[in-house]
Amino acid sequence: MKSGWRLQTQTGCTNTKAQVSQILKYCNSRCLAVVPQGGNTGLVGGSVPVFDEVIVNMSLMNNIISFDKVSGILVCEGGCILENLITFLDNQGFIMPLDLGAKGSCQIGGNVSTNAGGLRLVRYGSLHGNVLGLEVVLADGNVIDMLGTLRKDNTGYDLKHLFIGSEGSLGIVSKKLLMEAKRKLGEILSAFEFLDSKSLDLVLNHLDGVRNPLPPTLHKFYILIETTGSDEPYDRQKLEGFLLHAMEAGLISDGALAQDINQASSFWRIREGIPEALMKAGAVYKYDLSLPVEKMYDLVEEMRTRLSDSANVVGYGHLGDGNLHLNISTAQYDDGILTQIEPFVYEWTSKHRGSISAEHGLGLMKANEIFYSKPTATVSLMASIKKMLDPKGILNPYKVLPHSLSS
Amino acid sequence: MKSGWRLQTQTGCTNTKAQVSQILKYCNSRCLAVVPQGGNTGLVGGSVPVFDEVIVNMSLMNNIISFDKVSGILVCEGGCILENLITFLDNQGFIMPLDLGAKGSCQIGGNVSTNAGGLRLVRYGSLHGNVLGLEVVLADGNVIDMLGTLRKDNTGYDLKHLFIGSEGSLGIVSKKLLMEAKRKLGEILSAFEFLDSKSLDLVLNHLDGVRNPLPPTLHKFYILIETTGSDEPYDRQKLEGFLLHAMEAGLISDGALAQDINQASSFWRIREGIPEALMKAGAVYKYDLSLPVEKMYDLVEEMRTRLSDSANVVGYGHLGDGNLHLNISTAQYDDGILTQIEPFVYEWTSKHRGSISAEHGLGLMKANEIFYSKPTATVSLMASIKKMLDPKGILNPYKVLPHSLSS
Repeated sequence: MKSGWRLQTQTGCTNTKAQVSQILKYCNSRCLAVVPQGGNTGLVGGSVPVFDEVIVNMSLMNNIISFDKVSGILVCEGGCILENLITFLDNQGFIMPLDLGAKGSCQIGGNVSTNAGGLRLVRYGSLHGNVLGLEVVLADGNVIDMLGTLRKDNTGYDLKHLFIGSEGSLGIVSKKLLMEAKRKLGEILSAFEFLDSKSLDLVLNHLDGVRNPLPPTLHKFYILIETTGSDEPYDRQKLEGFLLHAMEAGLISDGALAQDINQASSFWRIREGIPEALMKAGAVYKYDLSLPVEKMYDLVEEMRTRLSDSANVVGYGHLGDGNLHLNISTAQYDDGILTQIEPFVYEWTSKHRGSISAEHGLGLMKANEIFYSKPTATVSLMASIKKMLDPKGILNPYKVLPHSLSS
Repeated sequence: MKSGWRLQTQTGCTNTKAQVSQILKYCNSRCLAVVPQGGNTGLVGGSVPVFDEVIVNMSLMNNIISFDKVSGILVCEGGCILENLITFLDNQGFIMPLDLGAKGSCQIGGNVSTNAGGLRLVRYGSLHGNVLGLEVVLADGNVIDMLGTLRKDNTGYDLKHLFIGSEGSLGIVSKKLLMEAKRKLGEILSAFEFLDSKSLDLVLNHLDGVRNPLPPTLHKFYILIETTGSDEPYDRQKLEGFLLHAMEAGLISDGALAQDINQASSFWRIREGIPEALMKAGAVYKYDLSLPVEKMYDLVEEMRTRLSDSANVVGYGHLGDGNLHLNISTAQYDDGILTQIEPFVYEWTSKHRGSISAEHGLGLMKANEIFYSKPTATVSLMASIKKMLDPKGILNPYKVLPHSLSS
């Protein structure tokens, strides 16, 4: 077994993704084989050269790019050593959802490439669940940016999973995103929903038998929190402590705690009844967007200004996931109103790096809008995969992929 | 917009995957387009025919195939209505990790095809994390079985993610597996590791400064439990209550609770020191297997019988994930011993529907063993994807895919 070439030098020739891209482009054009190498701690020989492969060592790409304490999202380069990330997050009061014996030398890019499991999997699940996005350099040097920092994004195939656990045989992981466990109530929190006063109004006006559990003073926003735990008395104390703290800190102005399962159901009826109430109110234009939490409601307010009295704009959704359901209710469908809404709503979302379909998918209606949420190279890769698996294009045609690529 | 053909009839022509396969084979050979349809509750037109597509309605494939209360794994057909699954699990004392407004009519196959989010995502994560396996019928009628019931399986590309959220444009989901949240301590449990007495012996004999926190009577098995919660006093009470209960029930015979972070580290040192102790003890043959939890240790005992005095067989690993590290320690490497271990260990694992690489990957050393854990059709699909993304085969050659398919 001959040893491979190491391209890493003291001057750091692989310390940017552009360099990784150049190396691969060069090697591909000359049919030179490549072994991506992280900490080289793997146990089955995945990161060692077999004959005369070029080793692309990632150690110099070891920068932590950003960490957002609100969303718990860490962005870093593929060569970061796992233990450094654990220590960094620990200092911020967060927990890295991955830990394993080789943490002192293994690198996060290698962890992702091998879908490393380790000691915390039982709690936090596998990297397929914890990696929110990836940037990958393909064999021909093309960089595929799958780096959305959103918890929910249902615009097309979720290609990052193809690379997680592919052991460097499909591409080199240059940058990645990790989602962290949240603090406070985190482990028993099972739902964290919000609705605005116009949503509540709609439900109270259009659905029978629904009543407001709070005094009739209208507040601007309502939050529905549900917890599910294994030990009811302790979990209840934990929830009550949290609510008391939030009240004292002025974060909430009033609240009601469901006393039994029937009351809990009646709270849920308000939240789940919004789509039904909207249908009863007339025509409705529905948008299901992922946005950075702090900007979520700005879009609702901008849309209200834009449409003034011609429509009732309501916002509700899954606050914990950064998922806004923006619904615009009018007496009847009207092309004039539609042109005021679209493409504005997609452009606004794209500008704020959101997703135009958090959970509803693209289907027929939004297939042509995919480029607002996905880079061209990613959409092309989706089209290639579609072509490979369904060469005659018989499965669910005209959906998901834009018409320009699906014929 | 013309309405499509509905193939579902009262005699139930799509109630087996073989029928779905036949329909697709027929349609593909005649270039007839198809729309897979579940509950048709989607909001973006993904499940409606656009011109003259054949609708393949999945409603009659609505059987719950199995539910295992130990692992919390549910196996069911794609046409099961979500609410029926929620009710079924609730009656068993389990929680479905997915809930949404349309639950009364939407189907689980459609939920998976659209990667439905809904109300519980903040707690349990997306379906990418909760779906353990899928069976999918491709456009040409071939059935791809990605139905491992294992929490960990790192043998090749995890292709199921390609179909989750692909909105029926890559294949039809005929059967699937859902992983459930566990009960008891579930939400604060962050590690659940086991080691046998021979593993502990090795660490105590070969590593300096490690001591047994329990009295020197050797027990057969040791468990290391770690919890991480948001509210220390409550979480501690919860843990102590659990331990007391386990002691009273005779499940554990002795235990020690770490009093501070240093003591916790010294407990972890025992578990994490096993690989190091094995290296110091001589040669070691390492196997990283996923197995049904109740059969995990049978393999260790069978291997001991098989090798008798010629080797020291130790078992340890991640009990919560069904992940056994089977390590065989000898004075030096010996081909005679190797032939007694392999292929026996792979055949045993395959026979018990385990994975020959839970978390280590296949790399160079196990690439040719992939067929013990993956069906031929799945490996072929992996090879096609590899060929598409890396046509010259320059990226990490000789790894992951078997040599017969990687040239």
